[in-house]
Amino acid sequence: MSKYRVLIDANDEKGLVYKVSTIFFEKDLNIISNSEFVDKDNNKFFMRSVVDGDIDKEALHTAIKAVLPQNSSIKVIEPKKKNIIIMATKELHALGDILIRHESGELDANILAVVSNYDKLESVVSKFNIPYITISHENLERHEHENKIIEAIQSYEDVDYIVLAKYMRILTPNFVKAFEDKIINIHHSFLPAFIGANPYKQAYDRGVKIIGATAHFVNNNLDEGPIIAQEVKHVNHAYSWKDMQRSGRDVEKVVLSRALKLALEDRIFVYANKTVIF
Amino acid sequence: MSKYRVLIDANDEKGLVYKVSTIFFEKDLNIISNSEFVDKDNNKFFMRSVVDGDIDKEALHTAIKAVLPQNSSIKVIEPKKKNIIIMATKELHALGDILIRHESGELDANILAVVSNYDKLESVVSKFNIPYITISHENLERHEHENKIIEAIQSYEDVDYIVLAKYMRILTPNFVKAFEDKIINIHHSFLPAFIGANPYKQAYDRGVKIIGATAHFVNNNLDEGPIIAQEVKHVNHAYSWKDMQRSGRDVEKVVLSRALKLALEDRIFVYANKTVIF
Amino acid sequence: MSKYRVLIDANDEKGLVYKVSTIFFEKDLNIISNSEFVDKDNNKFFMRSVVDGDIDKEALHTAIKAVLPQNSSIKVIEPKKKNIIIMATKELHALGDILIRHESGELDANILAVVSNYDKLESVVSKFNIPYITISHENLERHEHENKIIEAIQSYEDVDYIVLAKYMRILTPNFVKAFEDKIINIHHSFLPAFIGANPYKQAYDRGVKIIGATAHFVNNNLDEGPIIAQEVKHVNHAYSWKDMQRSGRDVEKVVLSRALKLALEDRIFVYANKTVIF
Amino acid sequence: MSKYRVLIDANDEKGLVYKVSTIFFEKDLNIISNSEFVDKDNNKFFMRSVVDGDIDKEALHTAIKAVLPQNSSIKVIEPKKKNIIIMATKELHALGDILIRHESGELDANILAVVSNYDKLESVVSKFNIPYITISHENLERHEHENKIIEAIQSYEDVDYIVLAKYMRILTPNFVKAFEDKIINIHHSFLPAFIGANPYKQAYDRGVKIIGATAHFVNNNLDEGPIIAQEVKHVNHAYSWKDMQRSGRDVEKVVLSRALKLALEDRIFVYANKTVIF
Repeated sequence: MSKYRVLIDANDEKGLVYKVSTIFFEKDLNIISNSEFVDKDNNKFFMRSVVDGDIDKEALHTAIKAVLPQNSSIKVIEPKKKNIIIMATKELHALGDILIRHESGELDANILAVVSNYDKLESVVSKFNIPYITISHENLERHEHENKIIEAIQSYEDVDYIVLAKYMRILTPNFVKAFEDKIINIHHSFLPAFIGANPYKQAYDRGVKIIGATAHFVNNNLDEGPIIAQEVKHVNHAYSWKDMQRSGRDVEKVVLSRALKLALEDRIFVYANKTVIF
Repeated sequence: MSKYRVLIDANDEKGLVYKVSTIFFEKDLNIISNSEFVDKDNNKFFMRSVVDGDIDKEALHTAIKAVLPQNSSIKVIEPKKKNIIIMATKELHALGDILIRHESGELDANILAVVSNYDKLESVVSKFNIPYITISHENLERHEHENKIIEAIQSYEDVDYIVLAKYMRILTPNFVKAFEDKIINIHHSFLPAFIGANPYKQAYDRGVKIIGATAHFVNNNLDEGPIIAQEVKHVNHAYSWKDMQRSGRDVEKVVLSRALKLALEDRIFVYANKTVIF
Repeated sequence: MSKYRVLIDANDEKGLVYKVSTIFFEKDLNIISNSEFVDKDNNKFFMRSVVDGDIDKEALHTAIKAVLPQNSSIKVIEPKKKNIIIMATKELHALGDILIRHESGELDANILAVVSNYDKLESVVSKFNIPYITISHENLERHEHENKIIEAIQSYEDVDYIVLAKYMRILTPNFVKAFEDKIINIHHSFLPAFIGANPYKQAYDRGVKIIGATAHFVNNNLDEGPIIAQEVKHVNHAYSWKDMQRSGRDVEKVVLSRALKLALEDRIFVYANKTVIF
Repeated sequence: MSKYRVLIDANDEKGLVYKVSTIFFEKDLNIISNSEFVDKDNNKFFMRSVVDGDIDKEALHTAIKAVLPQNSSIKVIEPKKKNIIIMATKELHALGDILIRHESGELDANILAVVSNYDKLESVVSKFNIPYITISHENLERHEHENKIIEAIQSYEDVDYIVLAKYMRILTPNFVKAFEDKIINIHHSFLPAFIGANPYKQAYDRGVKIIGATAHFVNNNLDEGPIIAQEVKHVNHAYSWKDMQRSGRDVEKVVLSRALKLALEDRIFVYANKTVIF
């Protein structure tokens, strides 16, 4: 007896809940939790069920597929630790938050490695017996540097997510394509405000009263991928941009860890450059 | 063709979603939105569906009842304006917020009357052509005063909710019983902190850094009914308790209006002195 | 004996607090509250003091001026109700919030009039015995329409602030110049995200998880004036853009009223397209 | 040339700002930042100044003392790393957050040691080369156990703060007295709601819609010391109390670290069982 997550992404039509729940019932599965959402504008149906029982994964998948519209996406997922690789540059806060969560057992993931363009964080990562791979970008063309990273990542099998924990270099479409829908980034602003470099400086110059952070999947357009989670923090005139940066780090790490948790629990659907989150 | 809200509160057992969605399907109804929640600890199942189609209310109710466990609660509700009576004392902010929402057409309710123990708010309520009933508590025993109010309220038919918009007198069990599960109150603290009189003074004396407000259904134990909505606001040492009170009013009115909206949209289930809100 | 607000905006130099507090001491004034801020980057000093005592306004101003650097701005303000004119279009929520606050006596202002390009809100404004001036933009060139509004506003004496409570037309530099530093606007987004038309639709399309509102002074560049206050609200995938709009109104009205309160209490300094708020 | 923090806590009387700022001026010190607060009810004056210049600490203290009312508290503090000891039990999140901040250099403190009644967190603390002292409470009377801890702490010199990072045992007045005004605790609720054991279970049972955490100084009455910082988080009916606990940890660690930062920067005044925070 075990719990499975069933994720359905289909064109909407009458009777989808009926059809899927009939299968669960006929297979004698118990529904632990169930979430649905219909996007009327795009005629899309999303469903995430956690079911409990004596489950034949393939048979369940086939049965559901048979009753849904063609081109539906169906995933039957046995909960288990996912494999992640973290990329960072020089800042510890977001990476450190993940390391501590991992250490305390609250993260349903194996951290395969940390990849960085600097060796600055090696000593702390090594304390946790996690491989640290420094791939300096110095004296390399951007594509050469990225290819080395791709190679390093691909030396691991079954990488589920690549987490950019303040990795401060822009990724090219080539890199993004290699890990489509797998790259989660934390951007240090309330997107779409302050796209690009040094958003805290931009925020300071604009005189905002709130700063924020945004976790999103990475697509080809920098800072324009589907947003997973956002959080904000009030600031005032007495904050220098460095103060905003320091203060913003607390938001960044919380948002990135929240997004990672949602991903590890298979709670995120992506479509139309947006996310549905159950 | 019209939309109905179907609310189900039942003991949990396998197949409930299947059974209900089968009925929707067989009756050719479209599910606009659907929310479920299972409370494992109490073995309770809650479901709120908005369905669209050619609906025979009685027939739908009967069909659902036939497939659910005994003692299930089933409501099939045609969305329409609900009737509310507002009770207030001397403060305008919470009442005023509801009046403005009503005026701008965003409140799905008829305000039958405002009942108060003072005439202070009469002039503003009258501007909106809403009956204002002053029932002074002076020179009356508590039960006499309440009986007059009960009488006034019961002179209206089909009162769905009584909204206590800073009505500053304690209600007796007799009053509460007369309008069971229909009284929504705003308490000016983050319950269960600061039960009772002058919570802002209590909060000030305790030196809290956050104040709050709580909307809840009223039951016999003062300030202990099921919580519908809560909101908070940061304060600091420079706030006197009067400042907290002034500042807290913005929270109070927002929370009360939010709770009222949830009630008017039939989104609240009550059980075990708690609420499930879809 | 009365309380005055003293506002100082000067180039920073050593001893400013000493010099000003010496004058307060010599004039036997009591400091009720005192706030200072030094912007190192711009070498600017800001101070807001509330002082109590037997005050000769002119003499106090002269004494302070004598000890400060040249080109300092010094204001000695006797607290009294300020005069405001509100501009609106068709939405009631922000205007209504101000009307209710005014009615309940919490707003330190006289509302001289409400000016709108539609007559839709006339009936509610009239309930409060406030003049409502409809100046339709139909069949008028933009500058003709604005000139009529300017004329209407200038028919009132001593207008301290013009509050744009969801006035949905763009103002030209000509209008802005006529009421420099006096126009407070509420923009229905977390600026600088979603500048321009229909920000909720933009926010929806971008798939944000937080919406917001921004109160700011209006300058010549639309939506780019100094920010006074911002607030946000979490949303999710289930919100249509209309839902975001509805939900956002609660944020808009709170932020606008907060900004207005700050202005009425003389708590805002403007410089470098930013605000210092004490 | 160096920066000092000057903290003044005095009975209020006319001219205090004048008197202190005169001294700063005469000693040719530059005021970097300055905050004052007067509590009218208690006739108390608080001031925190950061001054820059050629400072003779003793002379400055003496000069200020000479002009203030008797019984005033004056501190002239040279910013430097403070010494802290952390106490924990079995949970890593709050301790881990401090360890990572310390590692990344953002914490202005030396962590002298971690003291725990279990050895569970030893391996992670040891990674950071910080002494970990396990003092089991098993088979010991409460006072015996505490005396061992007191002894361990007092073996270090100049301990500025003892940080209870989810130390899950009640401290006796004897312990509290040994480190008066030096113990900072994180309580896992929005105090004063849910005092005592298992506040998340209490919160769940009460059906709250918001959970929180409170950092406070510890005095003799459990959970009743002066509050330094509070933060909250929205929850809903779908949260079990374990979910609330998990989710609440993110709030706990942020609040504790915020309170610690305020303490390390000498921003907290304590009086009347409350805090003034600049």
